[in-house]
Amino acid sequence: MLNIGLLGCGRIGQVHARSISQIDGVRVTAVADAFDAPARALADRTGAAAMGAADLIASAEVDAVVIGTPTDTHFDLIQASARAGKAIFCEKPVDMSADRIRACITAVETAGVAFMTAFNRRFDPNFASLQTRLKSGEIGDVEIVTIQSRDPSPPPIGYIKSSGGLFRDMMIHDLDMARFLLGEEPVTVYAVGASLVDPQIGQSGDVDTAAVTLTTRSGRICQITNSRRASYGYDQRIEVHGEKGMLRAENMLENTVEVATPAGFTKAPAKHFFLERYEAAFRAEMSYFVAAVAGRTKISPGIEDGLRAQLLADAATRSFEEARAVHVG
Amino acid sequence: MLNIGLLGCGRIGQVHARSISQIDGVRVTAVADAFDAPARALADRTGAAAMGAADLIASAEVDAVVIGTPTDTHFDLIQASARAGKAIFCEKPVDMSADRIRACITAVETAGVAFMTAFNRRFDPNFASLQTRLKSGEIGDVEIVTIQSRDPSPPPIGYIKSSGGLFRDMMIHDLDMARFLLGEEPVTVYAVGASLVDPQIGQSGDVDTAAVTLTTRSGRICQITNSRRASYGYDQRIEVHGEKGMLRAENMLENTVEVATPAGFTKAPAKHFFLERYEAAFRAEMSYFVAAVAGRTKISPGIEDGLRAQLLADAATRSFEEARAVHVG
Amino acid sequence: MLNIGLLGCGRIGQVHARSISQIDGVRVTAVADAFDAPARALADRTGAAAMGAADLIASAEVDAVVIGTPTDTHFDLIQASARAGKAIFCEKPVDMSADRIRACITAVETAGVAFMTAFNRRFDPNFASLQTRLKSGEIGDVEIVTIQSRDPSPPPIGYIKSSGGLFRDMMIHDLDMARFLLGEEPVTVYAVGASLVDPQIGQSGDVDTAAVTLTTRSGRICQITNSRRASYGYDQRIEVHGEKGMLRAENMLENTVEVATPAGFTKAPAKHFFLERYEAAFRAEMSYFVAAVAGRTKISPGIEDGLRAQLLADAATRSFEEARAVHVG
Amino acid sequence: MLNIGLLGCGRIGQVHARSISQIDGVRVTAVADAFDAPARALADRTGAAAMGAADLIASAEVDAVVIGTPTDTHFDLIQASARAGKAIFCEKPVDMSADRIRACITAVETAGVAFMTAFNRRFDPNFASLQTRLKSGEIGDVEIVTIQSRDPSPPPIGYIKSSGGLFRDMMIHDLDMARFLLGEEPVTVYAVGASLVDPQIGQSGDVDTAAVTLTTRSGRICQITNSRRASYGYDQRIEVHGEKGMLRAENMLENTVEVATPAGFTKAPAKHFFLERYEAAFRAEMSYFVAAVAGRTKISPGIEDGLRAQLLADAATRSFEEARAVHVG
Repeated sequence: MLNIGLLGCGRIGQVHARSISQIDGVRVTAVADAFDAPARALADRTGAAAMGAADLIASAEVDAVVIGTPTDTHFDLIQASARAGKAIFCEKPVDMSADRIRACITAVETAGVAFMTAFNRRFDPNFASLQTRLKSGEIGDVEIVTIQSRDPSPPPIGYIKSSGGLFRDMMIHDLDMARFLLGEEPVTVYAVGASLVDPQIGQSGDVDTAAVTLTTRSGRICQITNSRRASYGYDQRIEVHGEKGMLRAENMLENTVEVATPAGFTKAPAKHFFLERYEAAFRAEMSYFVAAVAGRTKISPGIEDGLRAQLLADAATRSFEEARAVHVG
Repeated sequence: MLNIGLLGCGRIGQVHARSISQIDGVRVTAVADAFDAPARALADRTGAAAMGAADLIASAEVDAVVIGTPTDTHFDLIQASARAGKAIFCEKPVDMSADRIRACITAVETAGVAFMTAFNRRFDPNFASLQTRLKSGEIGDVEIVTIQSRDPSPPPIGYIKSSGGLFRDMMIHDLDMARFLLGEEPVTVYAVGASLVDPQIGQSGDVDTAAVTLTTRSGRICQITNSRRASYGYDQRIEVHGEKGMLRAENMLENTVEVATPAGFTKAPAKHFFLERYEAAFRAEMSYFVAAVAGRTKISPGIEDGLRAQLLADAATRSFEEARAVHVG
Repeated sequence: MLNIGLLGCGRIGQVHARSISQIDGVRVTAVADAFDAPARALADRTGAAAMGAADLIASAEVDAVVIGTPTDTHFDLIQASARAGKAIFCEKPVDMSADRIRACITAVETAGVAFMTAFNRRFDPNFASLQTRLKSGEIGDVEIVTIQSRDPSPPPIGYIKSSGGLFRDMMIHDLDMARFLLGEEPVTVYAVGASLVDPQIGQSGDVDTAAVTLTTRSGRICQITNSRRASYGYDQRIEVHGEKGMLRAENMLENTVEVATPAGFTKAPAKHFFLERYEAAFRAEMSYFVAAVAGRTKISPGIEDGLRAQLLADAATRSFEEARAVHVG
Repeated sequence: MLNIGLLGCGRIGQVHARSISQIDGVRVTAVADAFDAPARALADRTGAAAMGAADLIASAEVDAVVIGTPTDTHFDLIQASARAGKAIFCEKPVDMSADRIRACITAVETAGVAFMTAFNRRFDPNFASLQTRLKSGEIGDVEIVTIQSRDPSPPPIGYIKSSGGLFRDMMIHDLDMARFLLGEEPVTVYAVGASLVDPQIGQSGDVDTAAVTLTTRSGRICQITNSRRASYGYDQRIEVHGEKGMLRAENMLENTVEVATPAGFTKAPAKHFFLERYEAAFRAEMSYFVAAVAGRTKISPGIEDGLRAQLLADAATRSFEEARAVHVG
């Protein structure tokens, strides 16, 4: 039985708690949150003890921590958890600063603890199946990766202001997916963006519509587009073009019903947002973490993957600001 | 060069004239119609001579006739054309009476002329491809055939009254398709029907909504549904379930455009009606006739196919009237 | 908190136990099975007490029973549970004999207990959404219902022999679905069938391939096809054609990945069988039962629905045996 | 009746001849080619006279010329045809040099003749429908345009060497499509590319895999990917994301047949190449030209559109060569 301490009892913490309840051999034994109410609510639901973060990390009843707190708290929690010898599952981004992520890498390596960066989309059954088939050589070498990623609607402007910007907050998922699929590290990044959805976003110095082009050393290309708005649901599509064919993963729709009328044939909209769309992915990533901590599989994506995605997001931000292609690596 | 005389210059005659103009090695040399205006119009367009039906059949400038006149005139035109040694392409149904079709068979066989029954759907590129793959054994032996066939809207009530009823007028196409796909002759027919679309159709003694079940000696099953109304266009779908899988042909849509909105993902309606939907089929059936007359392929479907489809339509009509399964063959 | 006693700890009992674990306000307090091992295993997993069926039904710790035992035990368990005043959730078919179902109706009505017949497909999110839209009038009055239902592969021949035959064992789900969608009771049933999948099934007196046509008083039509084999997964499709359009629910596929190669564009096979395909339906039907017992909604489908589906299955069996259309109701 | 002189009797000239034969009110009266055989063959098929290009342009029997000769001959033929007062339909690219296109603009404007640049894809019924709906405001203002354009296989290396490079030879179609859809002129161009398909292409200094990002003044974004190889047919897709939704046009497949097997559900490959895929587009663009010359509609795309697409292709080429974003306009 793996005993987990949940750091952060907000929306994502609750998602992880629900996943854990459905996996054999793991349970939540402790929860902590900066606020009392969510911690108590989650403690009630899971039967875990609510306590302070420091106590949770120190607790002998905790084998592994799941960090789902605000990004600016990750650094200290990682350092403390590593020192306490806990296995660590940490939400993305590991930190907004690449240098601080490097410091976390040192801490994690020094302590010799397992560390998984929660790029949940790698565990989406659709994308995971696509990547497995890709790696098996089904379409030969990768040539072009195309990623469309569009949220149903923008977050509150307050969130935007402290988000680090679209490239670091939203596109980081797609940049990790690009690495997951390209089979080579990107070496150039070119980013464009604009505020077409909500002028307030533009006024705050961020963009809500963006596109990035990545290239690898051997010439593979990845194109990504992001929008903070999609009227038809959470638009999450991937396409990989290779030597022998193409693999693509379409949106998951709300259901399989289609209506035919004089207007044509209408299928349901895409599943609304990440909680519905990636429900299976959240469960699968937690299962994977549990299996990895138990030594049944290699941990992945690791903290190094968290760093590399952050470096790409930083490069995309710089490319956008300086209106030029930027080299990475 | 094959010289064709067109008997009937209405809508379907014009379709055949247009097909002929796009096929190498064939031309329209004479046209005839009960009315002057359409005959002259088609003569002008094709460069053919307008004349009476008897003269056309007798003309040395005519190698083959295309019969697209009202059904009740087919019998005499077939008899005369056979006697004159012309190859014959005849619209379905050959005749409303199975006995009179048998008389035509005698005439055609006596004269030794080629005869093709215009079941155009066999030549639809989609259905033809499906049938070719079926015959090649791609899904093994046929087990269940499902045919959906729905017109966009009912014909004028005047047409209905002289049509012979839905089973003979509309479903005959699907009954021929069933024979084309089943690989065995149907031995039982069970039909149900109702007037759900237009009460006038029911009052005239016909149905506008119907379903038929066919079985063959070895137990293969075919289900057909027909409706005189489909708000979303001309609904023409076929599905064959076999030992090793399923082959199906979906509707042809007006175009490939899809719009995504909060209502979901909407594709275009089905192509409106038979002129658009079966444009390629009309051209292919005429090409096939020309090739068969030239001896490059075996003629098919022949007059025997016209008879068998009519016998199935008669059986379906009787089954519906007597509310019981009917044996055929 | 609703306390549930599980009668039957086989595959379907385990499905219900898992569903219950995910629903707030309900728990398994007792389990019973004719065999010790499965009862103990499920008791361990759920924290419930394993006991004999009679004790379970008598237990004050049980508010409602979930009957997932072999069909021939349903009658006694229903009688006893009704007398004990327990709410009853019973797997289909309620019983193989319509008369004995009628006796159960009397027992349930006398006791005044809630009774739900587990036609799980009504709770499939796709089919439920289709039916809701249908009832809302989105496509006007129903005209034609088409149901395709094909298992991936036949059950063991031993199962077949005690199954009551395809119409009662397999098609009963589709006959209930037909009632759910038609909006009127069927009045005629015509059935055909054959053994095309496995000759042993034919030798045992059953069929493995079948089709039924239903009609209602006002002339609505339903066509159903069943096969015990579908190489491409569990084929579960529904289509309703109405005055203003068509609603259809397509298969659920294993994932959304599509590969494009010289052979064309290939999507994943259908979800393999009922445990995967109807996972959400099983959960939803149990949620509905819990809500109905708590008085938050009306129970449905009830025991009367179980009877009517059985009467249709009986009629289909007789129609097949006597090769004629059969009147019901 | 509009009399057309065909300059160039190769593949594309033959396509235009066939289109013309199917349009009322227009005919081919003269044909010219650098080689005798193709000119005579096309003269035979159309009933036109074969002659030299100069004679054709001078002929009083010619109202309009269709230029389908090699690109390096366009300039002289345009100059001569404009001086002769002929309406001009010219294959893309108008010329490889923007300056020479500007000289052609002067010649055409001085002569006051109609000039249409043959960007056939604007007339594809799918893309045309998409653009019409876009312009009607169906999805609000354009935000992101995504264009996938992949040939089934690379042209001969000899062709590549004289093609002007992928951006000018192949992507020019997509750059025109981007202009057609964006609703604003692109102001920045960023291009990447590699030779992943055929090393000979790379050795000749060209790329076979490429991607371009365009932005407009208001911040709209277009991403284009090109490949000289697609195993699954001619991949031609467009997607436009706007304020209120998304419009996309999927590939045209060879037929509507789908097979279901243990491997899943397989649809036909995409129509093989441009002759099949754009058959309707070729016919529609010629109809449009005929209508425009007859004054029934405004000519479009004009010679200015030819220039602007060329300037974008030049910019993309420079961007690729210099590995930086390039400003245009």
